[in-house]
Amino acid sequence: MDATRELIERFLAALESRDWTAFADVLDPEVVYEIPQSRERIRGRDRYVQFNREFPGDWHLRPTMILVEGGAGVARFEWRVGEAPPEEAFVFFGVRDGLLATVTDYWPEPYDPPRGREHLTERW
Amino acid sequence: MDATRELIERFLAALESRDWTAFADVLDPEVVYEIPQSRERIRGRDRYVQFNREFPGDWHLRPTMILVEGGAGVARFEWRVGEAPPEEAFVFFGVRDGLLATVTDYWPEPYDPPRGREHLTERW
Repeated sequence: MDATRELIERFLAALESRDWTAFADVLDPEVVYEIPQSRERIRGRDRYVQFNREFPGDWHLRPTMILVEGGAGVARFEWRVGEAPPEEAFVFFGVRDGLLATVTDYWPEPYDPPRGREHLTERW
Repeated sequence: MDATRELIERFLAALESRDWTAFADVLDPEVVYEIPQSRERIRGRDRYVQFNREFPGDWHLRPTMILVEGGAGVARFEWRVGEAPPEEAFVFFGVRDGLLATVTDYWPEPYDPPRGREHLTERW
């Protein structure tokens, strides 16, 4: 479990510092990256590293929680691009043979609350 | 950890079966429920049970993954309302004194992929 957490921490730190060698070092050569919301998939370490290298904008991420169980884990992080307000996002991981073999991102967007529950909710 | 998993499983099963007594039984009286995307918060077990009782539509949920570490956990689940296609959602939990004291939902919505990465991605 400590090994899984360490992999996830190294993954996030390498992204934030654009250290593509360190980033590749935590990935299984056959890693599968998925974004279920857009139904996009990238197969393989080389392409996935390239995807992140090429990702546009002055983006930054700051982990807020890592939760690990055996060879599975999830990180919650704050995502910020340029001067835009930060958003929250998640990435789920699966480990195989000591490397990250699955990486699955979620990017929940802000929305206005549906009407009819104001008698129970407060806003912040 | 098994205790946390069992609480989460009971929470999800009680929701799906509309068993509001069983649902209340896994909640701390001072539970705090949050939906960060809409910045809504509900304080207290009674109001949170009421919120779920009153939630409109013929909704169903099916857990696909539960990940637990100590007194923290997350469930991924498929969410279906009536005949609409199912969507994926998440709920993070925190346990205090053997009951769920924090419940935090995320509802990521489908979106179209940004252009410029088709050379790396496949769609499904």
